[in-house]
Amino acid sequence: MSTDDRLERQIRFILEIDRLKNVLRQNMTTAGRPENSCEHSWHITVMAVLLGEHANERIDLLRVLKMLLVHDVVEIDAGDTYCYDLAAAAGQAQRERAAAERIFGLLPPDQGDEMRRLWEEFEQRRTPEARFAAAMDRLQPVLLNYFTQGEAWRRREVTNAQVMARNRTIGDGAARLWEYARGLIEDAARKGYIVGDADVSGLNGG
Amino acid sequence: MSTDDRLERQIRFILEIDRLKNVLRQNMTTAGRPENSCEHSWHITVMAVLLGEHANERIDLLRVLKMLLVHDVVEIDAGDTYCYDLAAAAGQAQRERAAAERIFGLLPPDQGDEMRRLWEEFEQRRTPEARFAAAMDRLQPVLLNYFTQGEAWRRREVTNAQVMARNRTIGDGAARLWEYARGLIEDAARKGYIVGDADVSGLNGG
Repeated sequence: MSTDDRLERQIRFILEIDRLKNVLRQNMTTAGRPENSCEHSWHITVMAVLLGEHANERIDLLRVLKMLLVHDVVEIDAGDTYCYDLAAAAGQAQRERAAAERIFGLLPPDQGDEMRRLWEEFEQRRTPEARFAAAMDRLQPVLLNYFTQGEAWRRREVTNAQVMARNRTIGDGAARLWEYARGLIEDAARKGYIVGDADVSGLNGG
Repeated sequence: MSTDDRLERQIRFILEIDRLKNVLRQNMTTAGRPENSCEHSWHITVMAVLLGEHANERIDLLRVLKMLLVHDVVEIDAGDTYCYDLAAAAGQAQRERAAAERIFGLLPPDQGDEMRRLWEEFEQRRTPEARFAAAMDRLQPVLLNYFTQGEAWRRREVTNAQVMARNRTIGDGAARLWEYARGLIEDAARKGYIVGDADVSGLNGG
């Protein structure tokens, strides 16, 4: 592949991922509007730079940053699946895999392979880097939710037990940060930012 | 400083920089709406991961990524100054310096110092990393402008000579990328995406 071909492919990918700016998430920014997946990706990448010292294991920060920068680009095709929406989650893995093939496939093959491997590593959470990256990906919505009085949690009637179960994996990457996040979630439940589990079983007639 | 104090300061900064999502730029995304500075920061950081091979000099990619991630957070206080707006540029350096003091000052001192130094390094463009980072910061708007038919250039009546002068520094970081960008700018001028210099001197009565 000539230098010109490589560069054309790189530019093609760079233009394609501009579309991540249009993928809206359930979470609200502190200004009270839905966040998009591009903004989320930037935010958690900065978080990794600053919070790396709290990782449970020694991590290669450069690999963490690359992983976080591209972990959501599959949403350009597959959309953002709200983590508490089980119906939407059906077929998600397959949609995202097809998206990874198409989007990372725009790059020169060596770079496409590297990016796809980083995306898979992130999804599988089997390395210290992936566990820490996943902790950033989960901690950030907890922060935004807590500091917007649980706006997205309340709108979607997410329960305390769901939030705890979902975010416990923060501890696999950074025990100290899970301790902190758990404190926020418990306080959110006390303040009514999260629907109580009892309330929801009531809604369901249980 | 205890671990708790460090973490509280880190979280404080992380929440503060959420506001970068509200700072609008002149450039349009390919979907045709104004881009914000947070989205721009993510985009150019991904670009650095992919285009690093075109840098003129050997670069420490991790330092480049950190630099690009935080280079615009001063805009939370200082606003985005359009690069072709000379009136707005007056006082910009002072506003941004004060913003850097306040915003990076939220962090634990060692991290605040590191981030402030990275920001200054970026601004001064004296290291290979800063020159390459600056090339990303300039190449991205050229791409977005070219692929939106010069939307922002035309609206602001920016001339070909201005665009050339502004973006020539891409070559200080990556000669190959400046060659590519210059080709786009020349083509943009031919296609009327940029106001011709003669047209503007006409507007000014010259």
